[in-house]
Amino acid sequence: NLGLARAEIKSGIREVILCKDQDGKLGLRIRHVNSGIFVAFVQVGLPAALAGLRFGDQILQINGQTVAGWDNNKAHNFLKKADGQRIEFAVRDRPFERTVTMQKDSNGFIGFVYKDGRIKSLVKDSSAARNGLLTDHQLIEVGGQNVVGLKDKETGAIIDSCGRTVTVTVMPCVIYDHIVKCMGSSIVKKLMDHSIPDL
Amino acid sequence: NLGLARAEIKSGIREVILCKDQDGKLGLRIRHVNSGIFVAFVQVGLPAALAGLRFGDQILQINGQTVAGWDNNKAHNFLKKADGQRIEFAVRDRPFERTVTMQKDSNGFIGFVYKDGRIKSLVKDSSAARNGLLTDHQLIEVGGQNVVGLKDKETGAIIDSCGRTVTVTVMPCVIYDHIVKCMGSSIVKKLMDHSIPDL
Repeated sequence: NLGLARAEIKSGIREVILCKDQDGKLGLRIRHVNSGIFVAFVQVGLPAALAGLRFGDQILQINGQTVAGWDNNKAHNFLKKADGQRIEFAVRDRPFERTVTMQKDSNGFIGFVYKDGRIKSLVKDSSAARNGLLTDHQLIEVGGQNVVGLKDKETGAIIDSCGRTVTVTVMPCVIYDHIVKCMGSSIVKKLMDHSIPDL
Repeated sequence: NLGLARAEIKSGIREVILCKDQDGKLGLRIRHVNSGIFVAFVQVGLPAALAGLRFGDQILQINGQTVAGWDNNKAHNFLKKADGQRIEFAVRDRPFERTVTMQKDSNGFIGFVYKDGRIKSLVKDSSAARNGLLTDHQLIEVGGQNVVGLKDKETGAIIDSCGRTVTVTVMPCVIYDHIVKCMGSSIVKKLMDHSIPDL
């Protein structure tokens, strides 16, 4: 299943090399959580998105420097000053997230109710309930495609466009709220990368 | 690495068959979180522990009934009434947890400070920092061995007894606190299963 493959959270640490664009931008915003730093925003079409950084990725090192304990400002300033030709990141794949795979029923429903991307309730004996989807979790991806900042109707259209099997990627709301705190929701809505990831 | 293999969080759903002991006990306590039910306690030597249920496992079905939306009481009552000869569980492996593998330095340190099993700080440029261990997370397992309720000294002895490579399993404190809420800490300390899991 392609959606499942795109959504899969990989163990281990990957290297990501970025190069600033002609305006000196990476299209990346960072948020610190629990002494780690996390990708909070990747702008569509800009270097961070094109290199495959995703919302929720944990950045472990930048140019060989371990970033544990850094805050947003320190990370953003470091990136601003860094040579734009080549910035090396060590990245752990979305540690706060997990995937749940469900099957649509004969009416095309998987069985959960959400509002503002937040799972509010589960339909009794639905595929969502059977597979252990949880409430108070935020939908981060559908079939590996980022839905952060999308309207519920838009997210619904992505779910509808999936085949019978739907894989969603979720994160506890308490952590999600912390990561997106301080970010203008209009920026996220307008500019967040929602492209379908390559495999 | 044996510790890593014991700690590994598996995707998919497993079946666990329990049979009550001669006193009618399973040695299992459950806690509901976000419309799911989770293993909050497994008593050493009793059926749940012997069958491999672990702290943090999500129970999806009991005897074919989907348990989404149940609370602790409903689950405990259902289990009390169930025929003791054979109780079937569908279980998802510790969905709130993840593992971080680190290497001891030449002094035998991996580089984090913890109190009451809670990660308080990371040592600069240590293996813990480089591998993205996070503060405000609770140590649930060391090398796959449960440490919930152990004294910090006891947990430290388990870390010391690991080889150079140490895999810890952690959970955000905000979720851990919710799962252990309402459980007598003396019960957890005295009776929680801390055996080394089979492979």
